Amino acid sequence: MRTRATLRAGVTDGIVEAVLDELAAVGFGRLTMDGVARRARAGKAALYRRWSSKQEMVLEVVTTISVPMAETAPTEDLADDVARLVHGVADWLTDARMSRIIPDLIAEATRNPELAAALTERLGSARRNYGQAVIDAAITRGEVSPDVDSEYVLDLIAAPVFWRICGRREQVTPAYLNRVVDTVLHALGSPRA
Amino acid sequence: MRTRATLRAGVTDGIVEAVLDELAAVGFGRLTMDGVARRARAGKAALYRRWSSKQEMVLEVVTTISVPMAETAPTEDLADDVARLVHGVADWLTDARMSRIIPDLIAEATRNPELAAALTERLGSARRNYGQAVIDAAITRGEVSPDVDSEYVLDLIAAPVFWRICGRREQVTPAYLNRVVDTVLHALGSPRA
Repeated sequence: MRTRATLRAGVTDGIVEAVLDELAAVGFGRLTMDGVARRARAGKAALYRRWSSKQEMVLEVVTTISVPMAETAPTEDLADDVARLVHGVADWLTDARMSRIIPDLIAEATRNPELAAALTERLGSARRNYGQAVIDAAITRGEVSPDVDSEYVLDLIAAPVFWRICGRREQVTPAYLNRVVDTVLHALGSPRA
Repeated sequence: MRTRATLRAGVTDGIVEAVLDELAAVGFGRLTMDGVARRARAGKAALYRRWSSKQEMVLEVVTTISVPMAETAPTEDLADDVARLVHGVADWLTDARMSRIIPDLIAEATRNPELAAALTERLGSARRNYGQAVIDAAITRGEVSPDVDSEYVLDLIAAPVFWRICGRREQVTPAYLNRVVDTVLHALGSPRA
């Protein structure tokens, strides 16, 4: 797929930057291909060569940046793995553009079932797979019960950080992130919590 | 203040319903006084008699419904109080209109500092005061340490439920809400967690 290869080759290219800037500034609803083209000083044809639609453009640009930011390979240390997952969420959502883009896409998804399904599959589930791998490794090591409610634990990794940064527009401090890690370990039934 | 009295007298009045319906359907950014007037089969003058602006109209309608939904008087039972707070969040966000309106206002607030400040003061802080009262009562009873991080605990009461319903567009089950209560009690340092 040429589109993906192009993006991998240079996430910092001008058109991708223009998509992110425009999305952060006006939101998905008001974003137009014209607006992105103007900002990128490119023609609309250049956009349509890469993406078939506005939705595809937004999804690919946002997921290509967001999914790798959740990447975490499980180690032997559960607390450390959870800390990396939680800090990964904070790094993602403290990015000036992502702190606007992600709440906007969440809001838009409540009115757009097709976007909602694509976001769940390509962004949410793709990011959560990294957290699931950490939980699965801890289950394999016998540190976490196979009956753990992974869905709930994965929610806890992201939810307080999202709520603090995007919902309440407050900072997350290292102490705050430590509390989130402790909370997640408790939900995992880990004796370290 | 006539406006508040009017609303108290009949939250279900046609104009308020039209504001909520229109807000849920199109979001704050695309909402117009004309759109609300059309939906309410009222004149725009009727809206401006009650509210000075679109922002004031939205804020008053949303807070007048949302804040009382967080109301919880502390009892002697911390686990019970926390459960009522958590279920209150779930009741609020499972409402078909609120599940669209709240994420939309959160997204809008990232681009509109005046709306953000008003939402924090009139909606967020007003709702959180009820949770703070529960924590304060537990501190007075000696069940919770005065050093507890209330800000974090208050985030935990709302964040997973918001994330589950609005961020992931999934159901919250009674079992899920029980887990949230357990998580909050753990963050409070309660021996019951």
